[in-house]
Amino acid sequence: MSKKVQTAISPTRAQDYPEWYQQVIKASDLAERSPVRGCMVIKPWGYSIWENIQREMDDMFKDTGVKNAYFPLFIPLNFMEKEAAHVEGFAKECAVVTHHRLEKGPEGGLVPAGQLAEPLVVRPTSETIIGESFSKWLNSYRDLPILINQWANVVRWEMRTRLFLRTSEFLWQEGHTAHATAEEALERTSQMLEVYSRIAQDYLAMPVIRGSKSEAERFPGAEDTQCIEAMMQDRKALQAGTSHFLGQNFAKASNIRFQTADEKEAIAWTTSWGVSTRLIGGLIMTHSDDDGLIVPPKLAPAHLVLLPILNNEAQRSKVMEYTEKLAAQLREQRYHDRRLRIEIDTRDIGGARGWDWIKKGVPLRVEIGPRDIAKDAVFFARRDKSHREKTSLPREEFCNSICSILDEIQGNLFQRAMDFRQANTQRIDNKAEFYSYFTPQNKEKPEIHGGFALTHWCGEAKCETKIKEDLTVTIRCIPFNSGKENGKCLICGKLSKQRAIFAKAY
Amino acid sequence: MSKKVQTAISPTRAQDYPEWYQQVIKASDLAERSPVRGCMVIKPWGYSIWENIQREMDDMFKDTGVKNAYFPLFIPLNFMEKEAAHVEGFAKECAVVTHHRLEKGPEGGLVPAGQLAEPLVVRPTSETIIGESFSKWLNSYRDLPILINQWANVVRWEMRTRLFLRTSEFLWQEGHTAHATAEEALERTSQMLEVYSRIAQDYLAMPVIRGSKSEAERFPGAEDTQCIEAMMQDRKALQAGTSHFLGQNFAKASNIRFQTADEKEAIAWTTSWGVSTRLIGGLIMTHSDDDGLIVPPKLAPAHLVLLPILNNEAQRSKVMEYTEKLAAQLREQRYHDRRLRIEIDTRDIGGARGWDWIKKGVPLRVEIGPRDIAKDAVFFARRDKSHREKTSLPREEFCNSICSILDEIQGNLFQRAMDFRQANTQRIDNKAEFYSYFTPQNKEKPEIHGGFALTHWCGEAKCETKIKEDLTVTIRCIPFNSGKENGKCLICGKLSKQRAIFAKAY
Repeated sequence: MSKKVQTAISPTRAQDYPEWYQQVIKASDLAERSPVRGCMVIKPWGYSIWENIQREMDDMFKDTGVKNAYFPLFIPLNFMEKEAAHVEGFAKECAVVTHHRLEKGPEGGLVPAGQLAEPLVVRPTSETIIGESFSKWLNSYRDLPILINQWANVVRWEMRTRLFLRTSEFLWQEGHTAHATAEEALERTSQMLEVYSRIAQDYLAMPVIRGSKSEAERFPGAEDTQCIEAMMQDRKALQAGTSHFLGQNFAKASNIRFQTADEKEAIAWTTSWGVSTRLIGGLIMTHSDDDGLIVPPKLAPAHLVLLPILNNEAQRSKVMEYTEKLAAQLREQRYHDRRLRIEIDTRDIGGARGWDWIKKGVPLRVEIGPRDIAKDAVFFARRDKSHREKTSLPREEFCNSICSILDEIQGNLFQRAMDFRQANTQRIDNKAEFYSYFTPQNKEKPEIHGGFALTHWCGEAKCETKIKEDLTVTIRCIPFNSGKENGKCLICGKLSKQRAIFAKAY
Repeated sequence: MSKKVQTAISPTRAQDYPEWYQQVIKASDLAERSPVRGCMVIKPWGYSIWENIQREMDDMFKDTGVKNAYFPLFIPLNFMEKEAAHVEGFAKECAVVTHHRLEKGPEGGLVPAGQLAEPLVVRPTSETIIGESFSKWLNSYRDLPILINQWANVVRWEMRTRLFLRTSEFLWQEGHTAHATAEEALERTSQMLEVYSRIAQDYLAMPVIRGSKSEAERFPGAEDTQCIEAMMQDRKALQAGTSHFLGQNFAKASNIRFQTADEKEAIAWTTSWGVSTRLIGGLIMTHSDDDGLIVPPKLAPAHLVLLPILNNEAQRSKVMEYTEKLAAQLREQRYHDRRLRIEIDTRDIGGARGWDWIKKGVPLRVEIGPRDIAKDAVFFARRDKSHREKTSLPREEFCNSICSILDEIQGNLFQRAMDFRQANTQRIDNKAEFYSYFTPQNKEKPEIHGGFALTHWCGEAKCETKIKEDLTVTIRCIPFNSGKENGKCLICGKLSKQRAIFAKAY
């Protein structure tokens, strides 16, 4: 009989990946389903990760000249009809407000009353309502560029939901800009994708591939959709952020015009770009293990937790005193220009206490007992290593090196994820091989397949559709850095000038 | 003929206060009406003030142990019926979602489809939906207190709206806490009112009176509503923040129960507390003058604006160089632990440039011309003084004293507002005097009246209603610091133990 390894999360990733994901969220107290269909409650531990993402990203936006503003939650129905492609893409599964009052009904309960002359749609995205403002704000070329961002909630009525990855209501930021020229708008599109790439890689420690979507996968109404794509531990792709060059489509629809320097009338060029609480789903699925969540230090709600050992009554006050002193010493430090975030857990619940913090993914756990105090040493465990591996360092040394330890964990998580992606990415030029790569070996685990395929594609929707229909595999993007290389389309054999990333996706 | 003084805002406060308010918002580019009835667009200058309020307040919340979380935008209709008083107070003018899809209708346009089995209400406040979560989170006394805050948008369908003061959608924070005892919940209620008072007085420079509402003016379902009330420049009161002790009303309605230390079942005690973008309306009406907005330095989107004088072509690059150098020197400084926020305006629009910044209320305007550079001196004007009053200081001295200049402005604004309130607050014990105090002297200016009256009231709703019906004057609060004093109720003459603040209100 083989010795069974206990894990804190059941099932494990290998046993049932989708269920493991739900259990990690539950065990780490990130979020939960709400009584409202498809909507989630983001609990403090999960919301804190979002706040940390927001703060870093907001600073980056502002450094590029973007300013925050706020636009209405509701969009008049006729606005949704303004841009033809947009209607097809977004005017479908929306929450529609039809009444503005509640009254006592004949059976005593409340019923909707006060029907609106024109229904209002709860924003699924705000291009049309923000476009209306831009058309009012913009007069002369001197007013350009307009660089706006909004932090908001949006609603898209989803039939099958999953915490963070796909919910009817989610939190996001949506940037909207208007420019005098196509070149400038395109430059902004790329610039913001670069910001997303930095957030993903340098903060979420999640390696991403930057590229452009195929026409079929574009944002409805965009001329180019650029994206960052990450590989999850089940080798599926997650679209983690998108930046759209909207050409003049929305500007025409919303009448965003300006007078040029030579006093002619011109139509502006616009962009929009967004990331959402979906990033937290990506963070979970990139790093977590069978013991629960692992949060990259730069975004961790707590960088470390202090666990004073208080079972010896005589030593209790001495241990607490040392703990408080250590916490105070650490709190004075800054980690990447933010204060070091420390938790102290004094609960008397035995071994469950340490496991709670393992499951919550806090980067460092420090146990403080009389022996450590006697040595003036700090006994700690890193979340990126086995839970049995613990190290002791003299207190001063620990305090002086804590930032570099956290950076090491941050780097380690990134490298691990990068290695995983590289090990599960193949250049494939043969159709049979491609089909076999994406066909689950084990019928009971349909989610297990090859990973990312870098494969030639002619650019025709027909070939893309064939692959999607046969394998539920889509083009994630045509990567920017793949370089030109002539080849033959996997399906039709026609000339292809570069490879696309194919994968199953969330 | 008297010399006519030009003002940047027309009409002036004396001419037409309500219209002046709208014009200040327009001239300072804070916000505007949106095409969606009753909803506003908060423009970057206005949103930045909100962000600054948020940041300060969020830190204060967290210092008291509160954590942020996020709950659904939608509330199932049956939740609204849970708490009897709450139904009466909030289940009225609500946005109601009845459909979850849009389809092409018979005439080609989009029409609502996919009717929901149970309508959803867009949250007017979240006691009921957050209460549902608390009931799940709470098991044992060890889980208490639960201290949660949410930054969110809420919707209350308003018939008559005014930017910032009363809009159908607004932004706010709502805190919700649960406690083991009534005492602890009451303590939290007061503690959060104290935070609001600090934000109002130390940041908005807006003096407030802290007190409890009369029963008639309480939050529907609360046992005690504490509030901060400020006086605007038209001598009307603005309720700027409320903190509610909810007793066990909502805990019973949402089944928020726990096991006590001696293993009995108990019902929790809850609180809720909120402030909103209404604070910005209060800020505008407390400080602004007939030249436009005045923003207290601690919340200003820009602390100062640099206005290089560039009309001398030969000196142009020299002036710009000096300007950039000064900006860099200033940006290194911190003002109350935040970076100093500097704008540089190089637009070639003549005198309109300076006036733009006066109207936007930036605390300090600095003009930089060749003569100032020759002297290495900074020529500046303060927004709290006449726009003609300008001072020159050697550059080093200016840079070293900028924080104290800003603090002086901040203090000055507060003192001015405090003096105004004191000058317009009377202790009134005589009914005729009271009625005359609140009766406009000039029929054409119904908004001009006495101000705040500190008057004895027996505590009966009847007497309160009489005053409200006769004069549209309400009890703003029974102030905490007024002390016990026996007197006679203004209306019925019965014994009164303390004075209440009576005023017309927004």
